[in-house]
Amino acid sequence: MTYCVGVMVDSGLVFAADRRTNAGADHVAEFKKMTVFEKKSDRVLVLLSAGNLAITQAVIETLEEHLDDHDDTPSLFTVPTMFRAARLVGNVLRELHDLDAEDLSEHNVEFNANFILGGQISGEEPKLYQIYAAGNFIEATPETPFLQIGETKYGKPVLDRLVRVSSDLAETAKCVLVSYSPTLRSNVSVGLPIDLVCYRKDRFEVSSRLVIAQNDPYFTSLSKRWDEGLAALFAELPNPAL
Amino acid sequence: MTYCVGVMVDSGLVFAADRRTNAGADHVAEFKKMTVFEKKSDRVLVLLSAGNLAITQAVIETLEEHLDDHDDTPSLFTVPTMFRAARLVGNVLRELHDLDAEDLSEHNVEFNANFILGGQISGEEPKLYQIYAAGNFIEATPETPFLQIGETKYGKPVLDRLVRVSSDLAETAKCVLVSYSPTLRSNVSVGLPIDLVCYRKDRFEVSSRLVIAQNDPYFTSLSKRWDEGLAALFAELPNPAL
Repeated sequence: MTYCVGVMVDSGLVFAADRRTNAGADHVAEFKKMTVFEKKSDRVLVLLSAGNLAITQAVIETLEEHLDDHDDTPSLFTVPTMFRAARLVGNVLRELHDLDAEDLSEHNVEFNANFILGGQISGEEPKLYQIYAAGNFIEATPETPFLQIGETKYGKPVLDRLVRVSSDLAETAKCVLVSYSPTLRSNVSVGLPIDLVCYRKDRFEVSSRLVIAQNDPYFTSLSKRWDEGLAALFAELPNPAL
Repeated sequence: MTYCVGVMVDSGLVFAADRRTNAGADHVAEFKKMTVFEKKSDRVLVLLSAGNLAITQAVIETLEEHLDDHDDTPSLFTVPTMFRAARLVGNVLRELHDLDAEDLSEHNVEFNANFILGGQISGEEPKLYQIYAAGNFIEATPETPFLQIGETKYGKPVLDRLVRVSSDLAETAKCVLVSYSPTLRSNVSVGLPIDLVCYRKDRFEVSSRLVIAQNDPYFTSLSKRWDEGLAALFAELPNPAL
């Protein structure tokens, strides 16, 4: 499993992805699920992936290969809009589906791959998309400014309550990290380290990158204070009259 | 969907179930998912159900029919232990599977039914079980004193953090209700009213029954204070250094 989240606020975008993968509980490994495509002063695109690792890696490799093509094949460095970028990721998924899905099916392996793609290309506003295994996609809006893939449910109540499009990037990053706290606790197939990237609107380069590893002082303190705060809040609330 | 939870603490048992069912988002209805089998001074058993309503209702009807049998057919009023009671529910599920599963399968309907069964039969300690569609079951223990069925994930982080076997019934009921707050918010297929039953160990009768309906003053205040407390706690935590 994995847990990835992208949030679009007025001031920019925040992305996070853990690095744990598992092919069964007896086969846990560490792989990065965040890929940054950056062409300074022109565009920044961040791609997060969840699902079958062979499929998601093949999609990313293909997208990376296209970057170096010198023919007319569109790439994440040449598409004119984020919408076209999301369509490109979807098309690569569809090509891979045509190649692999039947063989996978013969081994009872589902064609399971989901992506979050966000960023900004000069000439337009920042955008955030979730791309499904079928290659279709949805776009985040101010009403629903965050998208999640992988183990989404444990963190969703935190995001539902606390994400605000008016929040600055640091507060949004804090919110994203708080949403990892219950996820890490309730699902062992999500694990540190977490890759976190913030992109400030109209900068066309990554604003900050953090890797939250085991014993990271900030994240350890954040999780501890959140835990203790919840317990204190719970203790304050009155019991029902039975 | 539905969300049901049973918790076993030192002083007894707490059960809760919402009443919302849906056969598609365009077909939402209200059905009780909690059934109490009470034979005062001898036993109390509480059964919570999630899954296909036709299956769960058929299981409950069959169990209720058995109560009135005057032959040797075991019933929830005659089985000598909670383990045998859980096996009885499992056996009824298996009989129903033999009758219905093939026909359901022809209509692409999964044989989906899950139960929580808890209570106490005189002569033994209180027990809590989760019974799967296959008729097999697991038992709660002091290390994992709560069991959930239906939409389990939104409430699990609250229970993981806050359930204590040393808590009294009122505090445990509060904890269960707090776990409904994110569930109701994040999944519209779970909805009020909530049936809540507490059973105090060695009483052999239900200790209290609450129905938490829309605008219930206690639950409204609890949810509001929990929401506001979370927002205040979040605001107090420091942002990461980006």
